[in-house]
Amino acid sequence: MPKPQSWQLNPASYPFNHRAETRFADLDLLGHINNVSMAGLFEHGRGMFNHAIEVERRAPGQRWLIVSVALDYIAEAHFPEHVEIASGILRIGNSSWDIASAAFQGGECKATCITTIVLTDANGPTAIPQDLRGEFERLHVKSA
Amino acid sequence: MPKPQSWQLNPASYPFNHRAETRFADLDLLGHINNVSMAGLFEHGRGMFNHAIEVERRAPGQRWLIVSVALDYIAEAHFPEHVEIASGILRIGNSSWDIASAAFQGGECKATCITTIVLTDANGPTAIPQDLRGEFERLHVKSA
Amino acid sequence: MPKPQSWQLNPASYPFNHRAETRFADLDLLGHINNVSMAGLFEHGRGMFNHAIEVERRAPGQRWLIVSVALDYIAEAHFPEHVEIASGILRIGNSSWDIASAAFQGGECKATCITTIVLTDANGPTAIPQDLRGEFERLHVKSA
Amino acid sequence: MPKPQSWQLNPASYPFNHRAETRFADLDLLGHINNVSMAGLFEHGRGMFNHAIEVERRAPGQRWLIVSVALDYIAEAHFPEHVEIASGILRIGNSSWDIASAAFQGGECKATCITTIVLTDANGPTAIPQDLRGEFERLHVKSA
Repeated sequence: MPKPQSWQLNPASYPFNHRAETRFADLDLLGHINNVSMAGLFEHGRGMFNHAIEVERRAPGQRWLIVSVALDYIAEAHFPEHVEIASGILRIGNSSWDIASAAFQGGECKATCITTIVLTDANGPTAIPQDLRGEFERLHVKSA
Repeated sequence: MPKPQSWQLNPASYPFNHRAETRFADLDLLGHINNVSMAGLFEHGRGMFNHAIEVERRAPGQRWLIVSVALDYIAEAHFPEHVEIASGILRIGNSSWDIASAAFQGGECKATCITTIVLTDANGPTAIPQDLRGEFERLHVKSA
Repeated sequence: MPKPQSWQLNPASYPFNHRAETRFADLDLLGHINNVSMAGLFEHGRGMFNHAIEVERRAPGQRWLIVSVALDYIAEAHFPEHVEIASGILRIGNSSWDIASAAFQGGECKATCITTIVLTDANGPTAIPQDLRGEFERLHVKSA
Repeated sequence: MPKPQSWQLNPASYPFNHRAETRFADLDLLGHINNVSMAGLFEHGRGMFNHAIEVERRAPGQRWLIVSVALDYIAEAHFPEHVEIASGILRIGNSSWDIASAAFQGGECKATCITTIVLTDANGPTAIPQDLRGEFERLHVKSA
């Protein structure tokens, strides 16, 4: 698996940020934020990002399904510090798209996450409508 | 991201299997096993797989750190059915290795997971000792 | 708060038992099953108990709501041992009832739980129907 | 089980408040904050309360163990609203004490929690030292 690229580690690459509270329950036996808990924090930050989309996100009968989640762990994350979850759109396909996210504590990148989501209706994958596509462009990461 | 390959969807590819109990708490609002809960089930099955390694897994001062976790969601998984978490070694590097896992319900693959782990000591990554390497070979997936 | 009574610590007091798998994620920093995770295991065992009820559990428009949960922690519980969650009906009121549960490892009681549930419809609490009441009597704990 | 008393439902009864973030993962199938997740939020708020104690909380070899947790659910709690977890000391015994907590959303009490904790050393329960006792008095709830 390729390592995260340098732009992924830079908070300025992302158009959206959510400052998430960590919980004691996020710790594991080793005293750091557990890797599955970090996946949960990314889910949380991604949900907040999705709320920043200013058009109707799906029509009746449509669903957003998670196709894949790829997590890279860069450094140990701690409690009770907050985690800044930065997110943006990385790829816009025909019916699916990628969200790139990164978790920061004290400005240091602790983990990155790339999530692929597909828009479906009763017949399977369906094309991303034009206004949602416009929002995705507005919320693109700066990956150059 | 490349899609899971056909061998990954076949229970016979994996040398180890753990039949994991699902919980009501694994469900989300959509009524299926949540994607983060599935990551937790993979962590659980991976832990059981690690217990199947019959040599000392690390020397004093050494740690196993998770470098990355890549999850692919194939189909919706349900409660209260058990999930069979199959696991095996996919790649053996100098200081790191990949575990390939897959989750099955009723023989159908619901999700796959590739986890990269690195062996470290106080100086950073350190070479996998010979006896552990032998165990990894014994527990290799059939990916051909 | 009154301490658990001796019958609560005895597996033979309960008409129903579920052998629940513990997970690594149930552990906290102290290396034992976390108290909130134990509440989750009780929720799980209670759900399995509720499935043992052989009549229709509610009519359309009715809901079961949890009114209260009282947990007593007797001894530390461990992973990866299973936890036996024993449950039975302790009290049958007009519209609400109590479920008594206890968690055992190696025959030793680790924690007890008393849950009060109320049956409601659109107008609030509603009387437990006769057939459900019969099931509750069948599934009563031996608390004498 | 006695119902929560009116002072428990009043934010002004508590000397300490923590504004906790809720997560998507706190929701269950019914679309409200799950009862076990609420227990987790109380654990979180209680931890924050414990940090407000300004003296050494335990000597070497001492542990704080949770004896019991009693939760009353008053009304459904929602996501993504924050939950205000208010806490204070309710009872100071010889070696154990009770923390009373309540969860509020929009000023409305959603749930209450009473937690009993015991101070132990290698020989079992041990007397609360004078300075910690003083802190407990300073952080008492107004239950009159």
